[in-house]
Amino acid sequence: MTLLSEILEQPQRLSDLLVQQRQTTEEIARVIHTYQVEYVFLAARGSSDNAGRYASYLWGAHNRLPVALATPSLFTYYKAPPLLKKALVVGISQSGQSPDILAVMEEGKRQNCLTLAITNSPTSPLGQMADVTLDILSGPEIAVAATKTYTSQLMAIAMLSVALAGETKFWAFLEKVPGWISTTLNQSNEIAQASQRYRNMHQCVVLGRGYNYATAYEWALKMKELAYIMAEPYSSADFQHGPIALIESGFPVMAVAPRGKVLASMKQALLHLRNDFGAELTLISDAPDMLDLAQIRFPLPKGIPEWLTPLVSIIPAQLFTYHLTQIKGFDTETPRSIHKVTETQ
Amino acid sequence: MTLLSEILEQPQRLSDLLVQQRQTTEEIARVIHTYQVEYVFLAARGSSDNAGRYASYLWGAHNRLPVALATPSLFTYYKAPPLLKKALVVGISQSGQSPDILAVMEEGKRQNCLTLAITNSPTSPLGQMADVTLDILSGPEIAVAATKTYTSQLMAIAMLSVALAGETKFWAFLEKVPGWISTTLNQSNEIAQASQRYRNMHQCVVLGRGYNYATAYEWALKMKELAYIMAEPYSSADFQHGPIALIESGFPVMAVAPRGKVLASMKQALLHLRNDFGAELTLISDAPDMLDLAQIRFPLPKGIPEWLTPLVSIIPAQLFTYHLTQIKGFDTETPRSIHKVTETQ
Repeated sequence: MTLLSEILEQPQRLSDLLVQQRQTTEEIARVIHTYQVEYVFLAARGSSDNAGRYASYLWGAHNRLPVALATPSLFTYYKAPPLLKKALVVGISQSGQSPDILAVMEEGKRQNCLTLAITNSPTSPLGQMADVTLDILSGPEIAVAATKTYTSQLMAIAMLSVALAGETKFWAFLEKVPGWISTTLNQSNEIAQASQRYRNMHQCVVLGRGYNYATAYEWALKMKELAYIMAEPYSSADFQHGPIALIESGFPVMAVAPRGKVLASMKQALLHLRNDFGAELTLISDAPDMLDLAQIRFPLPKGIPEWLTPLVSIIPAQLFTYHLTQIKGFDTETPRSIHKVTETQ
Repeated sequence: MTLLSEILEQPQRLSDLLVQQRQTTEEIARVIHTYQVEYVFLAARGSSDNAGRYASYLWGAHNRLPVALATPSLFTYYKAPPLLKKALVVGISQSGQSPDILAVMEEGKRQNCLTLAITNSPTSPLGQMADVTLDILSGPEIAVAATKTYTSQLMAIAMLSVALAGETKFWAFLEKVPGWISTTLNQSNEIAQASQRYRNMHQCVVLGRGYNYATAYEWALKMKELAYIMAEPYSSADFQHGPIALIESGFPVMAVAPRGKVLASMKQALLHLRNDFGAELTLISDAPDMLDLAQIRFPLPKGIPEWLTPLVSIIPAQLFTYHLTQIKGFDTETPRSIHKVTETQ
């Protein structure tokens, strides 16, 4: 199966990316420093948009850069783009072909902003038109659902954060990521076994917060694309502002809650869901007391700094969705209705 | 029923807001002009966050202001806020009490940004701490689900847009909104009748684009809060990047697609869903050829400029959800699990 082999390739792809693109990333950081960038204006769709959510937390927390997610229709249909002034305009796209992402980047160039492409296809229109391009070097991704290009995008975002901050010692953390992913991939059989429980699941919510808000979105997207499950992602805070009314006894709640600054907040939310409403919990975490709350537990390796957990915490989610798709009898390689390259305006 | 009476109150509340707050809004616009604001950094939760989505399109298209939706956990749990420099920091909250929104505003003040509160409670912590406060004058909202405070927030956002642009002639359009809403409210009986068809609906998607991306989010939130339906909102573009795989024959798709610059894009997406996958369509629109595509049709009055359609297009969605909640036998006033004021960090 191509999808599974692409999932299993991830440690090698990320090792290669780290070695081969560190210098380019540091050069891009130098270029960015020569501009007086005040914030980031970021355009992306699908899994790439979820990578953008990671950037909005990581670049915010480590580089003090506010990140605005673009509203592409202002650039395409409305022809009324905002004034981007001192924004760094970033386009993230595996294929580098979607016209709406290109339209945002073109407008950024027209307004003399610095433009950065993060793409698996540096020869694409996106890769060619940006002032600076970071090739994520994932190799061809054949399966329709993005897996290795997503983690490569996250790694590229983390590399750029470290390069911008000039925190040389942080490269050592990045170098540990492929090993943490390999350890996690070893759980594939246990995850396959556990996923049988959800053969008849048609809907669920997926919670995450802070850095792993991105992971919740990406897990939910995989479940929709591959297993045709109505999986809706939320921050645990937004969830309490209304959608929590959905939960009744036995309702499946998936959550990504590794150790870190939002752990207490996630624990409080999940305890409330379990104890007061009888929600069924499936949890990805490295915290034993969190895992103890759940019916189904996917442990992460110990010692991952919180800001890097999204690169590892998506792995059990990918495996879970892959196995569940097989168990449900659906096609893991070519999901119905969607194509590898989606061109929207 | 309080919820229904609050829905029916909306024309009067918006008329009052327009008359009583035009001068204050114009003063706030003058204050904003004295700052060299480069973009907006906006914090909100729940329905107020959906109002923020409207602001991101309207202020982008009419005032050329990029809008970044805040990531409150960077301010609360992570204590690592981004540098906001020349941002206008905006907090939108009915109650003005949620600690996470306050944390974003406090940091904005600490960094010497101009801070603006849009709230129904000017004596709240949010209303008191902001440099400038726009009271939306909705009167007490008793029902847990927000209705009149949502449209009042949209009106406040539109008034500020007109005031900032100095487009005096646009006030005449704003003055027509209460009449358009009254006309739409007259369809309550037809909507009650039509909603019976969905008594057993447990999940659906809600599509909108551009200005009405906000309406899709708000409609979906109402269906979750009140009718416990797993309703997931999307822009029609994002929907094609993966989630479209969910759709099979008979799957209910709700859409908000009035005339305007994104109409052709919405029509293409809905035709694809209906003709290729057999989706069931429920449509809010003022375009007869769009309405013709749908099994269930909620027409809007003719002649509403596209940028003001969200103030009217949410009305059939509110009525639909209200009636459907009754038909399903649930409590329209006090939904399970949620409270009027939600305090998250």
